[in-house]
Amino acid sequence: MDEFARIRHWTHGRQSADMQRRQGVVLGIGDDAAVVEPPADETEPLQWVLAVDTMVETVHFADATMSEEDVGYKALAANVSDIAAMGGVPRHALVSVSVPPSYGADRMRRLYDGLYACADRYGVAVIGGDTTSSPQHLVIAVTVIGTVAAGRALRRSGAQPGDAVFVTGPVGLSAAGLHWLLARQNDPLAQPPPEAAALVRAHRRPAPSVRAGQLLAARGTCRSLNDVSDGLASEAWEIAEASGVRLVLREALLPRSGSLAAYASRAGVDPLEWMLYGGEDYVLVGTLAADDAEAAKAAFAAEGLPFYVIGETEAGDPGVELVVRSERRGAEERRVPLAKRGYNHFGG
Amino acid sequence: MDEFARIRHWTHGRQSADMQRRQGVVLGIGDDAAVVEPPADETEPLQWVLAVDTMVETVHFADATMSEEDVGYKALAANVSDIAAMGGVPRHALVSVSVPPSYGADRMRRLYDGLYACADRYGVAVIGGDTTSSPQHLVIAVTVIGTVAAGRALRRSGAQPGDAVFVTGPVGLSAAGLHWLLARQNDPLAQPPPEAAALVRAHRRPAPSVRAGQLLAARGTCRSLNDVSDGLASEAWEIAEASGVRLVLREALLPRSGSLAAYASRAGVDPLEWMLYGGEDYVLVGTLAADDAEAAKAAFAAEGLPFYVIGETEAGDPGVELVVRSERRGAEERRVPLAKRGYNHFGG
Repeated sequence: MDEFARIRHWTHGRQSADMQRRQGVVLGIGDDAAVVEPPADETEPLQWVLAVDTMVETVHFADATMSEEDVGYKALAANVSDIAAMGGVPRHALVSVSVPPSYGADRMRRLYDGLYACADRYGVAVIGGDTTSSPQHLVIAVTVIGTVAAGRALRRSGAQPGDAVFVTGPVGLSAAGLHWLLARQNDPLAQPPPEAAALVRAHRRPAPSVRAGQLLAARGTCRSLNDVSDGLASEAWEIAEASGVRLVLREALLPRSGSLAAYASRAGVDPLEWMLYGGEDYVLVGTLAADDAEAAKAAFAAEGLPFYVIGETEAGDPGVELVVRSERRGAEERRVPLAKRGYNHFGG
Repeated sequence: MDEFARIRHWTHGRQSADMQRRQGVVLGIGDDAAVVEPPADETEPLQWVLAVDTMVETVHFADATMSEEDVGYKALAANVSDIAAMGGVPRHALVSVSVPPSYGADRMRRLYDGLYACADRYGVAVIGGDTTSSPQHLVIAVTVIGTVAAGRALRRSGAQPGDAVFVTGPVGLSAAGLHWLLARQNDPLAQPPPEAAALVRAHRRPAPSVRAGQLLAARGTCRSLNDVSDGLASEAWEIAEASGVRLVLREALLPRSGSLAAYASRAGVDPLEWMLYGGEDYVLVGTLAADDAEAAKAAFAAEGLPFYVIGETEAGDPGVELVVRSERRGAEERRVPLAKRGYNHFGG
């Protein structure tokens, strides 16, 4: 198959003309470039939000950790999360794939199955791309374009002392899922523990907090926002440095997943390690005016969405600290500085 | 250096805030996503034009054929050409690079030198990107976003029988330049012939027909347009198939570069092979209403731009034919069908 035939095989008939039109697509896959306009039902002025994210075989995934469908799904989900972290609505995607000889037409078709499953889940119109060959490793770079009401995009740099720090979901599950996948690779006869399915799913099929980002942009009280792609500590550091504040997280307030706790205990790992330094959770971490925290939590709950206040911000040199859980009642509060280090997929 | 430090080293201070503001940039490099809006001086309704193009080390370039600066320049230029092929104005770029161990900080800095040289040449604001490691080969995927007056984007599919076929510059030079670069690699002591510099430059630093595309979009008589990335024959085939017409090209009308003719003669290659099946010329090929061809040529000439009518379109099964140059006066016109094959960088 030539390039056109391949692209057709992977993309043709996947999304309806109607769906694409609703997202403002004037011209989709098949010409030198795609053409889009603001969606017809939008009346207020919009700005466009754009991000690109890349996944490289052996760096971000391997056959043992992710199926082709998972790779396609997650490559788009990581970008959708970047749009969510600005408070935007994801609308369009362009897909660059560099295809090694080990990926035949069927494997690529499955990769696109996963990509389109994610696109349908978040209403993203796939409008174009580029396909090249690669000597050895699959590389997929996805660009996502979204919209946000003019002036409403949420940055990392707006946190103020006295803000409440929040996350929009539990953290550490993806890293624990990867830990299990690698353990199983080393011991193929290992029985999967009951909590493994939830952790593996978190690693392979992350669920970006798109609706949460939009709720936060609309409230007007959210002062900084980031998505957790490189671990909670690293993302908190980014907010601290961009905003010039200290973030004080409280161990006792961090949402603790039962699956994560069970697996960490079994694996003999401190779950806090995964919660702080694991990555690819794709929930949101941010700060908002402290006096709006309760109302925000209620507004999230009304839509069935989690919202956890996990600490507060202080004036001072940029940094991130953790108030560790006390073992004894009445013990003095103890703070430890959190390292800036991020996430490294395969521990290299 | 961590990822942020690296990106800062490559991108910081390259473009002024004023330049970025003129292009509608609300938020550039450094957050989860970039934010843009239509440029302030635009009053008519705009649509957005988006394309992605990827270059892979060993597939599209090698150390022997391109410097780091050339790779950066050309990676952006190829995308600028896609925007030109829609009649759009290129405005913003997002850059995904997957960096192998062989590319240290200095080589990457030089790659960005070239990328920004191209960005400055075409007024493109670099607004974001993603950097990952690569086990072995450099992969660079650039997404460019441009604007076009609403409804004016030029597609491949609008050609009608009786249109004039045109190109906006000579073709085949890039392929000849690559031929010389590979010949020199095999014979490092070979003296460069005098025409080599122009051919090598065409290969390394293509000059997309951005202004030409805009002139064509504004005229209202241009019915189809494509950029020549995969060779004139292949791009003409795309227009033929998308529009449902036959394109009849005339050998005698094809612009023939003196450098190309001299080098082809020296190399013992039929220059027509490079002109029809060489690639990466990044000029535009298209069709327009035949009765506007002379006026279009004059309008191009008034801006110092070349415009060559090279044939015409006919009703019939989609295809591309070449009317070969006759050796004898009064000889009957002879047509040969042109194969659909495209361009393959290293003849593999």
